[in-house]
Amino acid sequence: MKPYDKRDFPVANVRRFLEPGPIVLLSSAWKGERNIMTMGWHMIMEFQPSLVGCYIWTENHSFGMVRKSKECVINIPTADLAAKVVRIGNTSGRDVDKFAEFGLTAQPGAKVAAPLIAECYASFECRLADSSLIGKYSLFVLEVVKAHVAASPEYPRTLHYRGDGEFMISGTNTRRYRKLFKPHML
Amino acid sequence: MKPYDKRDFPVANVRRFLEPGPIVLLSSAWKGERNIMTMGWHMIMEFQPSLVGCYIWTENHSFGMVRKSKECVINIPTADLAAKVVRIGNTSGRDVDKFAEFGLTAQPGAKVAAPLIAECYASFECRLADSSLIGKYSLFVLEVVKAHVAASPEYPRTLHYRGDGEFMISGTNTRRYRKLFKPHML
Repeated sequence: MKPYDKRDFPVANVRRFLEPGPIVLLSSAWKGERNIMTMGWHMIMEFQPSLVGCYIWTENHSFGMVRKSKECVINIPTADLAAKVVRIGNTSGRDVDKFAEFGLTAQPGAKVAAPLIAECYASFECRLADSSLIGKYSLFVLEVVKAHVAASPEYPRTLHYRGDGEFMISGTNTRRYRKLFKPHML
Repeated sequence: MKPYDKRDFPVANVRRFLEPGPIVLLSSAWKGERNIMTMGWHMIMEFQPSLVGCYIWTENHSFGMVRKSKECVINIPTADLAAKVVRIGNTSGRDVDKFAEFGLTAQPGAKVAAPLIAECYASFECRLADSSLIGKYSLFVLEVVKAHVAASPEYPRTLHYRGDGEFMISGTNTRRYRKLFKPHML
């Protein structure tokens, strides 16, 4: 489990890594405290601004931290982190500092105070763009304001949660159907 | 490309197939017309009621059909349908009947007038639960009111879109980490 060497990546194109549906680690910071949660319910909502909708359960310690700080980082773990991803989901930031507990490295963000997770393949710094759906749906509309993606490999092996303790691990990638797309549909 | 033999499936558990993030085919019907669109932006929002958030672009012909009929079906295609999935995304229901054009079989739903796609692995009949986010975010909050899932295989090979004409195809499935979950987290 090594840190990934990440580079700047266009925020309008984070769909490349989020749209396939991986489970993500959401990191946050508030008043000297930092936290990580495992999150499976998210969706791309717009390219520009780069909006991502995220469901954060009210019982998650991160709920208050993100709502109050109005910032967070969406990190994409690879399959080698599977056991940690589960354990992070099992524990509460009320009780432990999950960076220390799980041996993960917090890196400073460029635009937000929430820390990046060095061992994740990609990290997307986010600001809370719209808090109006939190009350009714626990839905945080986030804007990705800075994106960092590993220089290699080109395709991460990501974890996709099926519920009931099961993961699907991302398989092959194909450009085989690219020629069928009309240019404006790409 | 054969129809899947589908069985009733608990609506509260459709996350099993949607949370991993596959691209889906959304079918609809309105005033004697039927349509299919390819959709990549969706997320689980609640188990019970079984809510799914779906982004439907205003320019999609399906936008008006779903908004007016207040119903649709979310169908999960498998990798053998990849070329059709792309072609469905390339064409507009304004111009063609996509069931006829792409040789897909419309099956009647149990609870909605929108047709199921027989050749898809799973079909989730949906009613529009909340239209209040359509104006601002093109976000349709749907409630799954009836679910149909293929009896076999246990795991479908699904298509996950990366943008730029590329798909990730779902890989292996693992229960290996299940023992790490606290029971209430499963």
